[in-house]
Amino acid sequence: MKYSIGVDMGGTNTDMGLVSENGNIVLRRNLPTNAYTELEPYVRDMMHEVDEMVKEETMRDGEAVSLEGIGIGAPNGNYYTGCVDNAPNLTIKGVLDFGKEIRKYRDVPVVLSNDANAAAYGEYVYGGARGMKHFIMFTLGTGVGSGIVVDGRLVHGSTGAAGELGHAILIPHGRKCSCGREGCLETYTSARGIVQTYCELKGVPVTSDVSSKMIGELAHQGDPTALKTWEIVGDQLGLAMANSVTFSAPEAIFLMGGPTQVGEPLLRPLRKAFEKYLLNIYAGTCQIRMSELRANEVAILGAAALLKMKQ
Amino acid sequence: MKYSIGVDMGGTNTDMGLVSENGNIVLRRNLPTNAYTELEPYVRDMMHEVDEMVKEETMRDGEAVSLEGIGIGAPNGNYYTGCVDNAPNLTIKGVLDFGKEIRKYRDVPVVLSNDANAAAYGEYVYGGARGMKHFIMFTLGTGVGSGIVVDGRLVHGSTGAAGELGHAILIPHGRKCSCGREGCLETYTSARGIVQTYCELKGVPVTSDVSSKMIGELAHQGDPTALKTWEIVGDQLGLAMANSVTFSAPEAIFLMGGPTQVGEPLLRPLRKAFEKYLLNIYAGTCQIRMSELRANEVAILGAAALLKMKQ
Repeated sequence: MKYSIGVDMGGTNTDMGLVSENGNIVLRRNLPTNAYTELEPYVRDMMHEVDEMVKEETMRDGEAVSLEGIGIGAPNGNYYTGCVDNAPNLTIKGVLDFGKEIRKYRDVPVVLSNDANAAAYGEYVYGGARGMKHFIMFTLGTGVGSGIVVDGRLVHGSTGAAGELGHAILIPHGRKCSCGREGCLETYTSARGIVQTYCELKGVPVTSDVSSKMIGELAHQGDPTALKTWEIVGDQLGLAMANSVTFSAPEAIFLMGGPTQVGEPLLRPLRKAFEKYLLNIYAGTCQIRMSELRANEVAILGAAALLKMKQ
Repeated sequence: MKYSIGVDMGGTNTDMGLVSENGNIVLRRNLPTNAYTELEPYVRDMMHEVDEMVKEETMRDGEAVSLEGIGIGAPNGNYYTGCVDNAPNLTIKGVLDFGKEIRKYRDVPVVLSNDANAAAYGEYVYGGARGMKHFIMFTLGTGVGSGIVVDGRLVHGSTGAAGELGHAILIPHGRKCSCGREGCLETYTSARGIVQTYCELKGVPVTSDVSSKMIGELAHQGDPTALKTWEIVGDQLGLAMANSVTFSAPEAIFLMGGPTQVGEPLLRPLRKAFEKYLLNIYAGTCQIRMSELRANEVAILGAAALLKMKQ
C-alpha cells in the first residue's frame, strides 16, 4: 500500500502522520521541536518515528508500506530550496536543509513549504477545493497566512515566499505590525488583532485575559461589543478577500484557523462585506467557504499533500 | 517564413500588424472600430486587411507567409471563451465570438485576451520580461490595468477576468470609482486620478483643461504642485505594487502607459514608496522597471504574443 508522511513543524511541537492514498491519517507521532537546537538529532529522531510508523502499519496491514515521500510544512519553509530559512520562532537556527539530512536515512522525495501553503494544498488534494483550479486559503491564528492556487498549482513566486496576504497593507498608516510596517491585514484579523479591536471598543487596555475564543463565546451569548468586534473583523477580512479576487479570480476563498471557529458572528458580516467590496465583474463567481479538513488534521494532510504537486 | 497577426481592438480604432517570429511589426493596418455595429462586417474587413498584408509580405519577401494565428487584445476579452463579453465602450454590442467568425475566412488559431494581459504577455515574449517566470505589468492610462504572469503563464483565473489590480481597493472609503465602489487604485493613479490630485492640491475644480501630460511637463519645469502630485501618485502606486508582491513574489513589476512617460518625477517617489511598503522578506527581490516595448508597438506585439502561450 502507498503512504506518505506529513510533518507539521511548529515552534513548540512537531506533529507527524502516516497518510494513506485517500487522505486518512492512519498513525501519528510527535516530537518536542523546542527540545532541539541542531537539525541532525531532530531529523534522526523524526526518521526513527517514521520507521516505527512504517513498521507498525506493515504489521497491522500485513502488506509492505510503500513510502511515496515526506512532505513538511514549516515556518519560513522554502519550496524551491527545500530548506527552512532562519525561522525566528524555531530553536533550531540557520538554514535547515531537510532534504539532504533526511536522505541520509531514506532515499525518498522530500517536499517542503510554509504552513499556510501546505494547508491550501491539503484542501486541494483532500478537502473542499478538490477539482478547483483557482482558489485562495486564508489561515487566521497568531498571524494571518495564505496559500494561493492558480491553474492547479501552488503559487510560490520567484523566491518561494509568495502568498503572504496577511502582510498586504489593508489600511495605509494603520495599526503597527510585528513586521515593522503599518496597516497589514494581520494587525486586524489575527487573534491578537481581534482582541485589540474588542478592547478598543470596550475602552480598556489590551490584556492577556482576553482571547479571540472568549470574544467568540461572548458573541454567541449576544454580547453587543463582541458582536460589533466580529462585524468589524468581517468587514476588514471581506475587503482583503475582495482585493485578492482582483488578482487571480478564484472559484472560492477558504477560511481556517482558531478565530474562524466562531462561525456565523464572523461569517455573516464577512459575506456581506465581500459582496459589497467585490468588483461587479466577479459577482457570483467566488464563494467563501470554511475549510473542510479537521483542525487537528489539516497541517499533517497539507504537508503530505505537497508530494502530489505537479512540477 | 512564419508570422502572426496582432490585433489591438480599441473603442475608436483597431490597429493590426503582421508580426515576424522575432517580434518585428513588418506591416500595419487599421480599421475604425466605431464605424461598425455588427461583428460580421468588422471581421470581414479585418480579414480582408489580413489577406492584403499576407499578399504584400509574400511579394516583398518572395517566400510564402505561413500564418501562425491571430492574437487579439480587446476590452473585456475573455481568454477562455475567445469572446468579447459586452464591452461597454464598443459600438459592436453583445457577446462577440471572434474565433467562430474568423474561421469562416481562415482556419488558424485565434487567441483573445484583454489589453493589459496582452501587454504583459508582449513584455514576456518580446520585451524586458523575457526569461522571467513571475512578473506583473501595471498599465496606466484612462484606467489602470494589470497583467500577471505566474510560472510563465498569464493568470486568467476561473472566469478569465483575473488581473484587475486597478480595482483593488487601495484606500477604504476613498475616492468614488467609475466601477461604483470607493478607493480603487484606478481612482488615484489613472490619468484622471492624477489630474484630480493636482487640482485638489491647487484648490481648483477638476477641468478638462488639465491633463496628466501637462502635469508631467510642469514637473520637469520644477513646478512644486506638479512635483507634489507625482510624489503622491508614486506613493500610492508604490503601496499597490508592494501589496501585489505579497501575492506572487514577482521578479519584477513593469510599468507602461501615458502617465508613466513623465519618468523620474514619478519613478523616484515610486521606488522609495515601494521599498518602504515592501515586506522585509521581499527586500531586494523585485525590481520596478519600465516596459521595454515602444508605446506604438506594445498592443500589437502583445496581441500577437498571446499565440505563444503554453496551454
